[in-house]
Amino acid sequence: MKTWKVYLSGEIHSDWREQITDGVAQLGLPIELMSPITVHEDSDDCGVAIFGAEEDKLWHDRKGALLNGIRTSTLLQDADVVVVRFGEKYKQWNAAFDAGYASALGKPIITLHPPEHDHALKEVDAAASAMARDPKQVVQALAYIIAGTMPG
Amino acid sequence: MKTWKVYLSGEIHSDWREQITDGVAQLGLPIELMSPITVHEDSDDCGVAIFGAEEDKLWHDRKGALLNGIRTSTLLQDADVVVVRFGEKYKQWNAAFDAGYASALGKPIITLHPPEHDHALKEVDAAASAMARDPKQVVQALAYIIAGTMPG
Amino acid sequence: MKTWKVYLSGEIHSDWREQITDGVAQLGLPIELMSPITVHEDSDDCGVAIFGAEEDKLWHDRKGALLNGIRTSTLLQDADVVVVRFGEKYKQWNAAFDAGYASALGKPIITLHPPEHDHALKEVDAAASAMARDPKQVVQALAYIIAGTMPG
Amino acid sequence: MKTWKVYLSGEIHSDWREQITDGVAQLGLPIELMSPITVHEDSDDCGVAIFGAEEDKLWHDRKGALLNGIRTSTLLQDADVVVVRFGEKYKQWNAAFDAGYASALGKPIITLHPPEHDHALKEVDAAASAMARDPKQVVQALAYIIAGTMPG
Amino acid sequence: MKTWKVYLSGEIHSDWREQITDGVAQLGLPIELMSPITVHEDSDDCGVAIFGAEEDKLWHDRKGALLNGIRTSTLLQDADVVVVRFGEKYKQWNAAFDAGYASALGKPIITLHPPEHDHALKEVDAAASAMARDPKQVVQALAYIIAGTMPG
Amino acid sequence: MKTWKVYLSGEIHSDWREQITDGVAQLGLPIELMSPITVHEDSDDCGVAIFGAEEDKLWHDRKGALLNGIRTSTLLQDADVVVVRFGEKYKQWNAAFDAGYASALGKPIITLHPPEHDHALKEVDAAASAMARDPKQVVQALAYIIAGTMPG
Amino acid sequence: MKTWKVYLSGEIHSDWREQITDGVAQLGLPIELMSPITVHEDSDDCGVAIFGAEEDKLWHDRKGALLNGIRTSTLLQDADVVVVRFGEKYKQWNAAFDAGYASALGKPIITLHPPEHDHALKEVDAAASAMARDPKQVVQALAYIIAGTMPG
Amino acid sequence: MKTWKVYLSGEIHSDWREQITDGVAQLGLPIELMSPITVHEDSDDCGVAIFGAEEDKLWHDRKGALLNGIRTSTLLQDADVVVVRFGEKYKQWNAAFDAGYASALGKPIITLHPPEHDHALKEVDAAASAMARDPKQVVQALAYIIAGTMPG
Repeated sequence: MKTWKVYLSGEIHSDWREQITDGVAQLGLPIELMSPITVHEDSDDCGVAIFGAEEDKLWHDRKGALLNGIRTSTLLQDADVVVVRFGEKYKQWNAAFDAGYASALGKPIITLHPPEHDHALKEVDAAASAMARDPKQVVQALAYIIAGTMPG
Repeated sequence: MKTWKVYLSGEIHSDWREQITDGVAQLGLPIELMSPITVHEDSDDCGVAIFGAEEDKLWHDRKGALLNGIRTSTLLQDADVVVVRFGEKYKQWNAAFDAGYASALGKPIITLHPPEHDHALKEVDAAASAMARDPKQVVQALAYIIAGTMPG
Repeated sequence: MKTWKVYLSGEIHSDWREQITDGVAQLGLPIELMSPITVHEDSDDCGVAIFGAEEDKLWHDRKGALLNGIRTSTLLQDADVVVVRFGEKYKQWNAAFDAGYASALGKPIITLHPPEHDHALKEVDAAASAMARDPKQVVQALAYIIAGTMPG
Repeated sequence: MKTWKVYLSGEIHSDWREQITDGVAQLGLPIELMSPITVHEDSDDCGVAIFGAEEDKLWHDRKGALLNGIRTSTLLQDADVVVVRFGEKYKQWNAAFDAGYASALGKPIITLHPPEHDHALKEVDAAASAMARDPKQVVQALAYIIAGTMPG
Repeated sequence: MKTWKVYLSGEIHSDWREQITDGVAQLGLPIELMSPITVHEDSDDCGVAIFGAEEDKLWHDRKGALLNGIRTSTLLQDADVVVVRFGEKYKQWNAAFDAGYASALGKPIITLHPPEHDHALKEVDAAASAMARDPKQVVQALAYIIAGTMPG
Repeated sequence: MKTWKVYLSGEIHSDWREQITDGVAQLGLPIELMSPITVHEDSDDCGVAIFGAEEDKLWHDRKGALLNGIRTSTLLQDADVVVVRFGEKYKQWNAAFDAGYASALGKPIITLHPPEHDHALKEVDAAASAMARDPKQVVQALAYIIAGTMPG
Repeated sequence: MKTWKVYLSGEIHSDWREQITDGVAQLGLPIELMSPITVHEDSDDCGVAIFGAEEDKLWHDRKGALLNGIRTSTLLQDADVVVVRFGEKYKQWNAAFDAGYASALGKPIITLHPPEHDHALKEVDAAASAMARDPKQVVQALAYIIAGTMPG
Repeated sequence: MKTWKVYLSGEIHSDWREQITDGVAQLGLPIELMSPITVHEDSDDCGVAIFGAEEDKLWHDRKGALLNGIRTSTLLQDADVVVVRFGEKYKQWNAAFDAGYASALGKPIITLHPPEHDHALKEVDAAASAMARDPKQVVQALAYIIAGTMPG
């Protein structure tokens, strides 16, 4: 039976990935969850930590972003479904970038965000197959898609 | 001789597109500039104006976003180069979405944004071939790429 | 300036193509409209008329359908936008087939059908960027997408 | 040895999928059969059940169709062979849509339908590699394709 | 209006290309006909004539075949429709090779051959959209596909 | 470790597939060999045996060829390497067709044929990565490619 | 008639591009020749000249290389044929990089280099359709491919 | 959990592959390392050893290069990440060719080379996601990408 590959993109400051992981495990769904590296400082500093310091913050960031990009682009291409979470705070442009990347690859997208972002995310939501407010809804959607299970 | 197709994505509240249009015209560069519909209210309301009103703001927005998406995805796929502008204000997630979309299609990207966005845009900049601070630099870059002209 | 290629798929028993053609001409939109061969008997009999008669109706139809398919698949691949019309009558499976074909190619789709088909067409509409009830709306949508013109 | 992935698209009101499943099991063929969610009400209501009710039937349907579309498009892309069944009744436009989608992806198609649909399905059949009247023929075709087994 | 690109592959010892060229001209069809280099000795010797002689016939042939392949693969990829002619004599494996190449690219194919080759060409014909016996039929097929003209 | 998928296309009247199978087994190479259905009558008659008789030999052949094509195109797309054998006799156009198909997909090709076919196969050989005279050479080539083993 | 797009990659220190340009003009061939920016200092310094100086030579070079890459990747993707010149001196890794890039895109390659590089370029030559020693041979090859003209 | 496929391209005269292999093993990373055949003489002579001697060194080399190319192109297409090593000596054009090939396929690249090559490799480095000086850094980069492990 198919193991579905689901990439969880976006916000790294709340526990939404854990909630989805727990929900998927409780239902025993055949899903391999994938994520970016979610330790904020590491994702910022990995480039210079490995390849050497940079004086200019721009190149410091560039080295890290390019390294993280290897993981992100590879896993997005592997994914069957991409979930993109926009939290309450921050610019989160990399989440929107991932959504655009997934969309151009023809990957089905599920967005996850609070109502106050609805208008600003209207283009992203229009490219998505579903918009969720709560990680539980993402799990329910995956359960239905993969196993036909309706919410209890 | 090749006419280069350059798509100008992002911010619609300043005159950066006009500056690039003027600069390209002054240099006589063989470029066809393309843009989304930049009249804010029209891009918000086009869907319901054409296909009928919606009570729910979400579907009002969805109808418009889907319609705008026809233009955006078509022109992004036509483009040789994609310029993505992030202004000082607003979420601008559709700009980041366009950047991700262009990146997955393998289109060369030039970003255009002020220094205060550098850290938040590091993933987008890492996927780009150049980062400009000023529309003049975008014109200079295009002049070099297309005609080999160095800035005067 | 870009000439948009718009393929008009589906029903051949009403004048919806003429209405769109007229509307596009009145607005002077830079559009090249494309269609299947819309003479019903010819599209049924072209295969045997050219390559020789068949006793079995199935092969009679097959020869014609394969020949028409050369035109259809070529023009669908050329198209920027695909309009798919479902009329009141008939099975119209080839219209739905064209919609699926266009969808897999990532072409933006505009459907055109009366409300009584809404439920039966929900999967097709979900793959489309817009659903119109009237050829006028299709023209208005194209006018907005291509020239930013809002309905008057 | 290769496990062939076969997607069974179309009619959900007769037991044709069970007949194929049984036939494949009896012959011990290395096939993974895949299907849409075939519980009619669930496939209609999944969207609102998970993401919240809609007053307008159109958006009720849209939410469900988009969710089902995640499963359908993913499995069609995974498939080696796509079987498309048209039953006696209903519009079945989603079956024809799936056939068009599979065709554009270059997937081999086997159609399954009664003779009264032959003329209306001539374009779909012309895009297919085989047309069956009975689920047994589909099993026989798969047995030959995969194992070289001729019908007994 | 679209100019259709039609590649004429295969036999170079009869005047079938001239017949198609004349027929297309008489009907004023918007077609750009494309062909391999049809001067037999030149297509055999072009490689060594340009890049220097080879003692071994195998490398003599290889240099020519690679050079001809630049033209063939480029024009096949440009083509909207590929006509493949098998004459009475010779192995004509390059014609079958072109047909396979076109088929994998999803190009519509029209074969042109006498009945005595039907069984040996059954796989090629099955990948084609039409099988003609006479260059006139090819012209008629193109006239129908492109202009909807039925044979007179 | 990677299991290499190698498709053996072409002649079905000598034991070259068995020789390659034996050679691969003796060297314990991690290869999954794939082939068309090689029982000549079955590959001719499978279509009508499953889907019903045809009076016209052309449609008899067509039904079989389309069915065999499901296997062929699927396995060619799965293959890492395609070996194409041309024997002493017959037209063998399907072998050349497979070679063209594989070539357009960018699959590495190894041809296997006697010297008397060299000139007629020059285009096919030019699209191949190697030309063998003997099944042993094919095994040796695979042993080198996969395991770095030089011929003993 | 088709205008062939030919990209001239590699060495910028001899007049081989001019020789090809002259030869193509003398024969009146329908070719659009394309090249990278060939002013050495400009191609080194364009990035910092436009976007601002860098202290670190590595980033100085990076900014220029990324900008040149916009031109190179765009024109390589536009090209029908790619000519890659390796001169007597320098590392010329960007020429080999372009050859690999063109090869993965399936573009026909003609290499142009002196015999002393033959062994070191054997992988690049094996991916090419022709190897020339002299710009004249490139012109002759293009004349044959495009117009069937044999060398005088 | 995903096994990452990493292709190690380039220099075959130092032990950098062994260092990466050891480092990956010590960290227990889920990586399948892939390489070309690294026995220099075998990679030069494989073609003639298997398919027969050639008098002309050029064809001797060609036969070998084409055979090695089967392995290289297949494994590059399989790879998630491509590491390209440039050593102190030799032309190493095949390394740059592989980098270009990987780049056109959209594969993330990590280069590995000493500082004296920085300027000559600026185009290759600009197409890469990271530049390492030492095999340890490559291992550290892979450890971070795959497991989020920061260097100790």
